[in-house]
Amino acid sequence: MAVYTEVSFEDLEVFLADYDLGAPLSFKGIAEGVENSNYFLQTERGSFILTLYEKRVQVGDLPFFLGLMEHLAARGIACPLPVRSKSGVQSASLNGRPAALLTFLNGLSLRRPEASHCAAAGAALAALHEAGKGFSITRPNALGADGWRELAEHCIPRADAVQDGLGPLIETAHRELVARWPRDLPAGVIHADLFPDNVLFMNAEVSGLIDFYFACNDAYAYDLAVMLNAWCFENDGAYNITKGKSLIAAYRRERGLGETEIEALPVLAGGAALRFLLTRLYDWLNHDPTALVRPKDPRDFARRLRFHQKVKSAAEYGL
Amino acid sequence: MAVYTEVSFEDLEVFLADYDLGAPLSFKGIAEGVENSNYFLQTERGSFILTLYEKRVQVGDLPFFLGLMEHLAARGIACPLPVRSKSGVQSASLNGRPAALLTFLNGLSLRRPEASHCAAAGAALAALHEAGKGFSITRPNALGADGWRELAEHCIPRADAVQDGLGPLIETAHRELVARWPRDLPAGVIHADLFPDNVLFMNAEVSGLIDFYFACNDAYAYDLAVMLNAWCFENDGAYNITKGKSLIAAYRRERGLGETEIEALPVLAGGAALRFLLTRLYDWLNHDPTALVRPKDPRDFARRLRFHQKVKSAAEYGL
Repeated sequence: MAVYTEVSFEDLEVFLADYDLGAPLSFKGIAEGVENSNYFLQTERGSFILTLYEKRVQVGDLPFFLGLMEHLAARGIACPLPVRSKSGVQSASLNGRPAALLTFLNGLSLRRPEASHCAAAGAALAALHEAGKGFSITRPNALGADGWRELAEHCIPRADAVQDGLGPLIETAHRELVARWPRDLPAGVIHADLFPDNVLFMNAEVSGLIDFYFACNDAYAYDLAVMLNAWCFENDGAYNITKGKSLIAAYRRERGLGETEIEALPVLAGGAALRFLLTRLYDWLNHDPTALVRPKDPRDFARRLRFHQKVKSAAEYGL
Repeated sequence: MAVYTEVSFEDLEVFLADYDLGAPLSFKGIAEGVENSNYFLQTERGSFILTLYEKRVQVGDLPFFLGLMEHLAARGIACPLPVRSKSGVQSASLNGRPAALLTFLNGLSLRRPEASHCAAAGAALAALHEAGKGFSITRPNALGADGWRELAEHCIPRADAVQDGLGPLIETAHRELVARWPRDLPAGVIHADLFPDNVLFMNAEVSGLIDFYFACNDAYAYDLAVMLNAWCFENDGAYNITKGKSLIAAYRRERGLGETEIEALPVLAGGAALRFLLTRLYDWLNHDPTALVRPKDPRDFARRLRFHQKVKSAAEYGL
């Protein structure tokens, strides 16, 4: 929600000299992206996003993120395409930060997606999974089951100050989910953060998938479980099975789900809820009041986690 | 530098139903405008800025600000044009805030304008002064000489904590400037805040003047004095007389300066420095650390004020 690193017109001019994009027509910092500084740039050749990667994105991961977008775009996925410089590189340095220029995608993200949007987004996820096959770089999921312990140990001692019973909830859920976590599901490149903010729509159709900076290699069905958490709960915390059914059915039309994936869905959904609960709680507890970003309320995902703990089978999600 | 009031796609759709702009293609919060929430909007009909007016802008002033932009645009000034709704109004309500849609202007603002840019901007100011004639609504300058007392009294007791000697500087300057303040200079509509951020350039020519939310009726030469403060000092605090000469000469080619205006320039320049010193100091002293905006350093304008106190005649500005 902020611009952390300022870029003047003069800085931009020097940066653009290495690209074949013509003269800049407009340039505005945009209030988007918790992790990075983003600018909307129009030049004689089109519209672009200039991203400066702030400290949470590791420079070493850029070849994975940018290479993945190039790989997916070449296979028909509507995602930002990193613009290569005249010398052929996908990223450069600007005001002390690694930076990349990406094509701008039209479309708007929805605050309150309906079942038809869930279906369109579910189909887009499956298409992304299929298109990601053959991408040669890999990146482990730092926020997968093996990554929760450190966050949980940090958060548990102070969790009850945020919500009564939150510490024990995390402790129990973490122990049970890790014990039951499936390790041999079909896996490949996943988006890992396909919330409604990251799906652009035009005329009720998906026009773009954005923000690939949590993408990694993990179970495909975990990505679906993230989407059930992100798209199918109402503001009052209730699971909307109509949305779940639409999302899952549309996904399955593009990419089939195996028996082991279906059986694992409640555990995967619980794990996805725990992952977002932990990162939001961490950000909540460690929020710098002078920061330009307001942390998101972690309690929404505590409620989802409690829901998943009671689920007996994937049928309850609408399968 | 932030979006204070969030607008979802769904909110936007309802709002746009009252306008004849076609379907939205993209919509992004932009990190611009200390006072308001701004969104960049592209529709089938073009590019626009959606502004939600936050508490510092009085609803009662909107007919002046929006009407002025319409008046100026009709007279050839490259400024945002408020888009009227189907029912003909210039502003409406959105998520509890007064809101307006304005045309988007291409161009980029400069961090380090050169003398040629100062000239172009000075000519644009004079053109704005000429074009503003005949605008029927008036608005007093709330931050003119009569408005400094309240700010000064609030700031002086704590000013020395910001910089040694700042309290006495303000006290002396305020007393002297008010005593010497010219009350009968040629006056009309002025921009009152024409800093480099608010002037857009394309190919070294002015492509737009923006942010009219301090515009008011006051002495034309005061607006020129604001620009000398905003455009003609180097980062090290030195006045750049080459830039001053260029700016003033270009202004005078579009609108002549009378003897009384020239004589008053040192006092007006001191007053402009005091005005920005006071508002920045006020924001600095009253900064909410949880706010999304970082306050600007008031000491830059203390330095400018000390410079103006030593100026003997307008010739020192490059006249």
